Order: sequence, then structure tokens, then C-alpha cells
Amino acid sequence: MAIEIERKFLVETDEWRSGIESQVRLVQGYLANHQNATVRVRIKGQQAFLTIKGATHGISRAEFEYPIPVADAEVLLRDLTVSPPIEKTRYQVRYRSDLWDLDVFSGANAGLIMAEIELETADQVVDLPPWLGNEVSHDSRYYNVNLARHPYHHW
Amino acid sequence: MAIEIERKFLVETDEWRSGIESQVRLVQGYLANHQNATVRVRIKGQQAFLTIKGATHGISRAEFEYPIPVADAEVLLRDLTVSPPIEKTRYQVRYRSDLWDLDVFSGANAGLIMAEIELETADQVVDLPPWLGNEVSHDSRYYNVNLARHPYHHW
Repeated sequence: MAIEIERKFLVETDEWRSGIESQVRLVQGYLANHQNATVRVRIKGQQAFLTIKGATHGISRAEFEYPIPVADAEVLLRDLTVSPPIEKTRYQVRYRSDLWDLDVFSGANAGLIMAEIELETADQVVDLPPWLGNEVSHDSRYYNVNLARHPYHHW
Repeated sequence: MAIEIERKFLVETDEWRSGIESQVRLVQGYLANHQNATVRVRIKGQQAFLTIKGATHGISRAEFEYPIPVADAEVLLRDLTVSPPIEKTRYQVRYRSDLWDLDVFSGANAGLIMAEIELETADQVVDLPPWLGNEVSHDSRYYNVNLARHPYHHW
């Protein structure tokens, strides 16, 4: 088990593109979403994972991740999720000493770009890049599980 | 992915005990239970598994099973399930050429004993042991996921 602590922001400008270090295509859906847990199936490039996250306490939550065969993930995403999968390209972007995840959504969430950073501790000071917009760490509309059910295009 | 086909029966007498070949303690709970899927965490003796099952079609359903660390399963069962875990001892019982699973429930389901057999095909002929009671393959009260939410003691 790991504890995940992250902050999420909207992205205002395209300046982040100069810091791209890598990119990968993500397709993900949810097998569960209730007050105690979410269960996510994700295809990440040529790999697939099952990820279970516990309830959020502040900006941290318990996380368990297991690799699974991509062929299994394809069936799970096609038949067993609670709502249609979401699709996005994740860019790893360098800003000074930090590596950020920039998620550029497609499909029903096209137009949405979010930046995330994983922290060691909840009170860690973060060097905020100039291309960031508002922080949305606590805005549940931007949780991926909610973007699957209520896509950005329908807001 | 496997396809699971099984028939379930109540157990009327104790005669099955003479056919016991092995036994194991099971503790299991559910991370998800919706129309498209169930996600089960199970500790089986010294091992643990995450099992995802699709919607039931007749007596068959898609099944995906992954081993996970027992320490993870303990946290999942303690904090992340939708209802308290269920506990039972599973006996493997020989009757002629077949091996049956006999589940003797404890805790809130104590008093309930069920026999299950896994089939190769949905129309396979089964040699029914004399200790079987009524078939409950299609009675949703006896699904384990429902025994977790509505235990036998509360019927």
C-alpha cells in the first residue's frame, strides 16, 4: 500500500509544452466508486493496471496498484465499468526541479487540461509554474471518476 | 479471463463430512457490487486474491482473478469494502467422480451451509449427492455479495 498525496491545477497557457519529457496515452474506467473506495482499470501505453484507492482524507488517500494483462483490461473497460472510459494523453513536464503530470483529455472531456504533482508530505512547498491556473485539488468535478460520469462537455 | 459456470445447493444432512478431502478458511468482502461487475477481496488460508466478476448470464459469468499480498487484503477488508466481510470454512468434498465445495458460514451467516459445483458447460449432467437440499443457483439471496449485505441471521 502507498499513500498518495497530490495537488491538481487547471492549465492556462501552452508554455508547458517546452518542458515535455515524455508522453503516454491513457484509457481508464471505474469498476467501483463508493464512499469507501474507487477501483480503476487503466491502460497506459502497452501496460495495464488495476488501482484501488481508499477514501480521501484532505489531499491524501491509500492506494494499491496491481499490473494486469492488457487483454483483461480491454474486456474490463468494454463490459464491466460503471460508466464509459475516459481518454487522455499524459505528458511528463519538467519545471525547475519538479516533474509534473499534464493530462490533456480527449473525447467527451476534450478541452480540459489538468496539471498534477505528487507530494512527499501534505505540507510540502511546491514551486508553481507560471502556466498554472486555479487549484482544483478539492473540486470533486475534476476527479477522474466524476469526469467519467459527468464529462466536461456536459458542464 | 475465465468463464465461471456453477450450480449451488443448500445442504440438508451431515453425511458429506465423510467425503472431506481438504479445508480452508475464507474471509471475503466486496469493493464493488453493481449491475456490470462485482470486485471481491478474499483471504484464502495464507493467500489473498482480487476477483472481478461480470454480469451473470444464466449460470455463467466472466471472471478475472489476481493474487495480491495478504497484507494488502487485510487493509482492503478492514477499510474499503461496501459492507462487513463474510467468513466461512470451505471444505472440498468428494462425491463419486466430482469434487464439491461445501461452504460452512460463520459470524452473521452461521447456520448456512451451501454446496457448489463448477461445471465445464452449462448443460453438463451432475451426479447429485444425497445430502443436497434445494438448488439455489438462481436465488440472489444466496449470492455471497448479498450475504455480506443481508446476512442469513437477519432473514
